[in-house]
Amino acid sequence: MKRIFEVDPWRVETHQFNQEDKRLQESMTAIGNDYMGMRGNFEEGYSGDTLQGTYLAGVWFPDKTRVGWWKNGYPKYFGKSLNAPSFIGIGITVNGEKLDLAKVKFSDFYLSLDMHQGLLSRSFVYHGHDVDVKFEFERFLHINLKEAALIKVKATVLKGHAKIDFDSTLDGTIVNEDSNYDEHFWMSLGENDSDRTIQVKTKPNPYKVPQFTVLLKEGLRHDNEKIEGRVSTEEAKLSEKVSVELEEGQSYDLEKDVIVVTSRDVEDANQLAKANELMEKLQSKSFDENLADHTASWQKRWSKSDVVIAGDDAAQQGIRFNILQLFMTYYGEDKRLNVGPKGFTGEKYGGATYWDTEAYIVPMYLSVTDPAVTRALLQYRHDQLAGAYHNAAQQGLKGALFPMVTFNGIECHNEWEITFEEIHRNADIPFAIYQYTNYTGDESYVKNEGMDVLVGTARFWADRVHFSKLRNKYVLHGVTGPNEYENNVNNNWFTNTMAKWLLEYTLERLPKATKEAQVRVNVSDEEKAHWKDIADNMYLGEDKKRGIFLQQDDFLDKDIRPVSTIPENERPINQHWSWDKILRSPFIKQADVLQGIYFLNDRYTKEQKEKNFDFYEPLTVHESSLSPSIHSILAAELGKKEKAVELYERTARLDLDNYNNDTSDGLHITSMSGSWLAIVQGFAGMRYDHDQLKFNPFIPKNWDHYSFKINYRGRLIEVYVDHQEIKLTLIEGQTIDVWVKGEKVTLKKGESKCLKA
Amino acid sequence: MKRIFEVDPWRVETHQFNQEDKRLQESMTAIGNDYMGMRGNFEEGYSGDTLQGTYLAGVWFPDKTRVGWWKNGYPKYFGKSLNAPSFIGIGITVNGEKLDLAKVKFSDFYLSLDMHQGLLSRSFVYHGHDVDVKFEFERFLHINLKEAALIKVKATVLKGHAKIDFDSTLDGTIVNEDSNYDEHFWMSLGENDSDRTIQVKTKPNPYKVPQFTVLLKEGLRHDNEKIEGRVSTEEAKLSEKVSVELEEGQSYDLEKDVIVVTSRDVEDANQLAKANELMEKLQSKSFDENLADHTASWQKRWSKSDVVIAGDDAAQQGIRFNILQLFMTYYGEDKRLNVGPKGFTGEKYGGATYWDTEAYIVPMYLSVTDPAVTRALLQYRHDQLAGAYHNAAQQGLKGALFPMVTFNGIECHNEWEITFEEIHRNADIPFAIYQYTNYTGDESYVKNEGMDVLVGTARFWADRVHFSKLRNKYVLHGVTGPNEYENNVNNNWFTNTMAKWLLEYTLERLPKATKEAQVRVNVSDEEKAHWKDIADNMYLGEDKKRGIFLQQDDFLDKDIRPVSTIPENERPINQHWSWDKILRSPFIKQADVLQGIYFLNDRYTKEQKEKNFDFYEPLTVHESSLSPSIHSILAAELGKKEKAVELYERTARLDLDNYNNDTSDGLHITSMSGSWLAIVQGFAGMRYDHDQLKFNPFIPKNWDHYSFKINYRGRLIEVYVDHQEIKLTLIEGQTIDVWVKGEKVTLKKGESKCLKA
Repeated sequence: MKRIFEVDPWRVETHQFNQEDKRLQESMTAIGNDYMGMRGNFEEGYSGDTLQGTYLAGVWFPDKTRVGWWKNGYPKYFGKSLNAPSFIGIGITVNGEKLDLAKVKFSDFYLSLDMHQGLLSRSFVYHGHDVDVKFEFERFLHINLKEAALIKVKATVLKGHAKIDFDSTLDGTIVNEDSNYDEHFWMSLGENDSDRTIQVKTKPNPYKVPQFTVLLKEGLRHDNEKIEGRVSTEEAKLSEKVSVELEEGQSYDLEKDVIVVTSRDVEDANQLAKANELMEKLQSKSFDENLADHTASWQKRWSKSDVVIAGDDAAQQGIRFNILQLFMTYYGEDKRLNVGPKGFTGEKYGGATYWDTEAYIVPMYLSVTDPAVTRALLQYRHDQLAGAYHNAAQQGLKGALFPMVTFNGIECHNEWEITFEEIHRNADIPFAIYQYTNYTGDESYVKNEGMDVLVGTARFWADRVHFSKLRNKYVLHGVTGPNEYENNVNNNWFTNTMAKWLLEYTLERLPKATKEAQVRVNVSDEEKAHWKDIADNMYLGEDKKRGIFLQQDDFLDKDIRPVSTIPENERPINQHWSWDKILRSPFIKQADVLQGIYFLNDRYTKEQKEKNFDFYEPLTVHESSLSPSIHSILAAELGKKEKAVELYERTARLDLDNYNNDTSDGLHITSMSGSWLAIVQGFAGMRYDHDQLKFNPFIPKNWDHYSFKINYRGRLIEVYVDHQEIKLTLIEGQTIDVWVKGEKVTLKKGESKCLKA
Repeated sequence: MKRIFEVDPWRVETHQFNQEDKRLQESMTAIGNDYMGMRGNFEEGYSGDTLQGTYLAGVWFPDKTRVGWWKNGYPKYFGKSLNAPSFIGIGITVNGEKLDLAKVKFSDFYLSLDMHQGLLSRSFVYHGHDVDVKFEFERFLHINLKEAALIKVKATVLKGHAKIDFDSTLDGTIVNEDSNYDEHFWMSLGENDSDRTIQVKTKPNPYKVPQFTVLLKEGLRHDNEKIEGRVSTEEAKLSEKVSVELEEGQSYDLEKDVIVVTSRDVEDANQLAKANELMEKLQSKSFDENLADHTASWQKRWSKSDVVIAGDDAAQQGIRFNILQLFMTYYGEDKRLNVGPKGFTGEKYGGATYWDTEAYIVPMYLSVTDPAVTRALLQYRHDQLAGAYHNAAQQGLKGALFPMVTFNGIECHNEWEITFEEIHRNADIPFAIYQYTNYTGDESYVKNEGMDVLVGTARFWADRVHFSKLRNKYVLHGVTGPNEYENNVNNNWFTNTMAKWLLEYTLERLPKATKEAQVRVNVSDEEKAHWKDIADNMYLGEDKKRGIFLQQDDFLDKDIRPVSTIPENERPINQHWSWDKILRSPFIKQADVLQGIYFLNDRYTKEQKEKNFDFYEPLTVHESSLSPSIHSILAAELGKKEKAVELYERTARLDLDNYNNDTSDGLHITSMSGSWLAIVQGFAGMRYDHDQLKFNPFIPKNWDHYSFKINYRGRLIEVYVDHQEIKLTLIEGQTIDVWVKGEKVTLKKGESKCLKA
C-alpha cells in the first residue's frame, strides 16, 4: 500500500514529486474520453523512469511473437493494445537549458486531476541560472469532440530574463514498452509541414486483421489567436517551434490543439480533410469555451451517477475516482468498443475485452447509464458470435466459446490454462443477458439476439462435459475457475454451477423466444432432452460435513491454512512466490465458489452463504482487483459489517492506495465498478430479482451519510442513508413500489419516503 | 509415416529430389562431429523451402523474448541453440545461370550419407542452355580435427562449353528461424581479406551468460594444391570467387577447407593464430588422406558398437542410422557438453540438456563407450549443482532441482507446467548414478560427488511433498509426469515412486559415503528420520480391482478408451487436437507408470507388469520419440513378441520413416538410443542388477540373426542370436559369469559359448 496523492473529495492532487513514484503518478493522472486517452506523462518530456503511453480505442496489433515451445491450437497472435503516436509533447528550454524534472531544479510542484471537470493541471517553478519561471499546464480530452485534445502551457517569469523555446511535437515513432527487441508496429505514411500533420499506419500482418491508419494534426494558439511556429519534419515526426523572450513579471501562454483521426471512422484519403474540418470546429472556440462545454457534459454524467459519502473523504475520493476513470474509458457512445482492463492507462493485458465487462461493469452500468448502453454491450458479443464459433472450433468443440481476451471476437491470448480452460466466461458472459432482462424488464433482447448467444454457448457446454462412469454424473475436467491460482482442475464448482445455470436458463427461455429466433437456433427435442439431462445430472462437489461447496476435486487434500499464516513480507504472493508454490497452496486469488453464490444469490440459504464465506474468505488473498468487492457485498449481506467496510476500502482505493503494488502498470479499470457495487449492492443491499427492487441498507460506522442515484425501469431514484434514516426519492418516472428491509414502499415522482435506519 | 530414402544396410541414400520433402531430407542428411554440425543444406544454395542450419556445440544465446502475461519465478531467458555462421556455401553459376535446384533443370540426382565413413555425397547433372554439367559434392566434419570441415565439389562438362563461377562464402549474418522479427544475435567483429576469415560475437545480454566469439577461416584447393580466389567482404561476410572455363569432357574440382574456432576453447585475440595453425594442419594432408583418417576413426567406433541384423535391412539401417547420429552428436570427448535433443540437426527445443540424457542415453553409452564417458555425463550434472540449487530457490524450495532444459545448470525454459512441474527429472537424473554404479561396479562416484547430487535432490523432495491429513500420507501436488499430455496433476504415481526411490537410495548410500562427502552433505539424524518417514508413507495410487497403479489422482474419472478409437486422420493427436482436448483425453504421450516399472524393473511381479502394460499401453499414442522403446522392452519381457517388434520398428526408424511427422524440424537424437535399448534390453533381455549380467534373448520372426557387443566391467562381449542358437563370445577381458535364460554361463577370453535359442 502506498498513497502518493492527497485526500480530497473532488480532486486527486499532490504537492510532491518523487521520481521513484513517477509511473504510479502517471497511472493515477491518466485521462481519457472513451475515444482516446493517455497516461499522466509530462508535456515537456522526462528522462527518468517513465511509461510513456497514448492509446486509441479499438486500435491494436496482432503480434506474432512466440517463445519456447508452442502448442497446437494456440491463437495465431497475441492481440496488443498499441502504444499510439504521442501528441502531448511540448519540449521546453529556458535560456538553453532543457526543462526535465528528472534533472533541473524546481519547487512548488503541484499536480491535480479535477474529477468534476475531467481536467488535468500541473504547475511548478523552475529555478535556472539567475532565472525563475513558473510553468502551468492544463490538459483535457474533449468529451463532446472526441478527436480533440487541448493542452495549454503558461510560463511566467518570476525572476530574471528568460528566452523560452517551445517545441510542439507529434511523434509516430512509438514502440510498445513490452516489445522484446524494440519492434516497430507503426510505419509512416508521410508528414505534411503546411498542414501540420503526420499520418502513420500499423504494419501489415498475415492474419487479415485490418491495418489501422491514424492522422494527427496540431494547431497552436497564443492568447486564443492562431499562431504558426517553425515546422520541421522527419519520418513519422513533426516539430513546431515557437520562441519567446520574457522579462521578470511577464508571462506567455501557448495552446496546443490536436486532432486525432483514425481509419476506424475515416478512410485514409479523407483523414486530412476531416482533421482540418475538426480543427476548425475546435478552434472556433477558445480554450476556456471548449473547457466549459467539456465540463458541462461531465456535469450531466455526474448528476446521474455521483455517489456522495459524507464523513469519510478517502472513501468519497475513491468512489469518484473510480466512476471518473470508468466513464473516461467507456460511456457507451461507440458500440464497436468495450471496456479494456487497463482502459487508456497502460498496455498490460493486451486485449480490449474480458469477461470483466459482463460480470462487473454491466451490473453497475445498468443503474448509472441508459439501458441502451448495457444493451450495446450485449450486442457487442452478439456481433462477435462468429469469432466465438471459431474459438470453439479451434478446440475441436461444438457451439460458441466467447474469448478470454479479444478485440474482434477471436481469442488472442495464448496461455492454455486461461485461453482453453478458463471457460466459465462462457456462462458469465451470457449471464449478463439474464441481468439485463431482470433489471430492465425488457425481454426483447433475450427473445431474439440473446437466444443466439444462449444456444451457441449451451451447445459448447453440452460438448465440453463428459459423463463419468465412476461418478454417474456429468463432469467438467481441465478448467480454470475465476480463482486463477488453480489451473487445470476438475469439477470447479463455480464452472459446473454456471454451466448448469446456462443450460437451464436456455431451456427456460427457448419456448418464449421469437419465432424467427427459434427457427434460427433450430434446437431439436433430442438436443433439449440432452441439455436437461446434463443440467439435472451435473456433478457439483460438496463437503457435507463442513457444509461447503468444493472449489474443485481434491481441494481438501491441500494443506489448508488461512491467509493470516503468510508472512506479511511475502504478500502479494504473486509478486513473491513462484507459480508452483501458488498453485499448490490453498490460497485463493479472487471469489470462486463465492462468485457463484454472488451471481445466483437467491438460490442459496443464509447458512450456506455463511459457511462458504467463513471457509473460503480466510483463504482468499484478494490479489485480483475483482475480488474485494464481491466479498464486501456478501459480507454486508451476512451482517459482517466490519469485513464489508474493510473490503470496500480495498476496492474503492485499490489504485489510489496501490494496494496490490501494480498500479504503476496502469489502473484496474474493469474492477472500478466494484466499489460502486459494494456500496449499492453491499451497504445498501440492492437486489432486483423477480421484478422486485429491494434494499436492505446499513451505513459504515465512520460515515455520516451516503447517497446514490439509480436508473431503474424509467425511474431515477435517489437513495440516502444516514445513521437515523433511510430516505428514498423518486426524482423521475412513474410511481413504483420498492422493498426496503422487507417493507413495501411506494414512491411517487418528486416525493421522498423516510424509514428508520 | 513417410519414407524418402532407400533401404540399405550402410547408406541413407536417395535418387529422388522432391521439393516438398526438402526439410525432411535435410534433417536426415545432417552430419556432425560432436563439436559442430549442420543440416543437409546444399552448398550452392537453394531458394525453395529450406531450414538452413549450422550449430556449434555449447554456443548459445539467452533470448529475453516474452509474450503475453508472464508469471513470477519464470526463468529470465529462453536459452536458444544459435544458428551459427554458415560455412558450407559455394555458390555456382554456369554460363551465368545460378545453380539452384529449386529452379534449374537437372537429372540424375543422387544423395547419400555413408554411415560407415560419416561422409555426405551428392551428385546431379545440370542441364543448361546447350550445356550439361555433372556436379559431385562430398562433405565431412573431421572427427579427429574437430574444428575442420572439408567440402569438395567436382564439375564435369558432359556437353557443350561451360564457364563456371564458384563463390565460396563464410556467412555470419545468420538469423534463427524461430526469431520473431528477424532478431540478430550475432554481430561482426571484423573480416580479414588476406587471412580469409570472419569473426563474429553473440550480442551482449544482461544475464551474465558469456558472449561467444567464433572465428571462421577458409582455404581453397584445386587438385590438392592451394589456390586463391578473388576475395571480397562485407559486414560479417566473406566471399572468395574462382572461375573456370571447361570444354566438353573436362572437369574441375574445388576443395573448400574450413576451420571454426570458438571462444569456448580459444580467446578472441588468439583465434586467428589458432585457425591459421589448424588450417596448416588440415592442409598438410590431401582431402583423401584426411578422409582416410576420419574414416579410420569411424571404424574404431563401429567396431565396438555396431549392431548387426541379418534378414531385415530396414531394421539394420535404422539401428545404424541411430548409432551414427548419436555418435555424431556426442562421444564424450568434451566434458562440458551434453546430448541435445536435436543435436546439430535443428533449432527446436532450445536448450542443450534434458533428462533424456540420463534416462535414455546413459544406459546405452554404458555399454558402447568407455565408462569414463558416462562418468563425464554424471560429472556434468555435478558441475551444475549450483544451478540446481538456484532453480529450487526460484521456486522457494530447499535443496537442488535439476533443470528441465539448460545449457549451464540454470533452468532456461518457461512453461510453468514443464519448468516448475515436470520434476520427476529430479529423481531420474540421480537415477543415472544408480545405473552407473550398478553397471560398472564402480562405487567411487556415488561415494563422493554422487552424494552431493543425492542429498541435494533429496532435500528438494523432502520440501516439495506435503502431508495430507485427508489421506494420512505424503502427497505430491501439481506435477507433470513423463506423460506430458497431463499437466498439473496430483500424485503422479511415477513421480511419487521415483521420489520415494531417491530418498531410499540416498539413505542407503549415505553411510557408505566417504568421510569427506559425509561432512560436506552434513545430514542430521533428524533429517534422515524425516526422509525415512516420507519414503515410508509416500502415497502411491493404486486401483486394486484392476490391479494397476494409478497414473494420477482421478485418472479413472476420465472417459477411458483405447487409442484405436481415434480416427487415423486425427493422428498424431498433438498435430490435430487442441491442447485442451489432449489434456482431457485419457491418451498417454509416453511411458509414465510404465517408465517407473521399466526403471525399477526388479521390484514388480510379472503380474503387476502385465496388468499395467495391458491397461496403459492401449491408451498410449507414443507421440514422444522416447515412448516406443520403453514399451518394446517391457513387451519383450512379457513375451508379447509381436508388440515388441512393432514398437522396435517404430523407434528404430522413427526419423527414417518420419513416424511422428516432425522430422523436418530435426532428428530425435536423444531417443535414438531407444532402438539400441529395444534390441539389447528388449530382444536380448539384458539386465544387470545385483552384480549379475543376464540375458533372455529371442529373435524377431523375420530376422535371420542379430548380434551386438557390450563393454561390461572391463570385458568386451559379443552376443549373437539366431533362430537356433545364442552365442556369447568374450572378445576381451577376464573370465566372467553371465546368466542366459537363468542359466549360468562362464565366458573366457577368446572363447564362445553356444546355447539353444
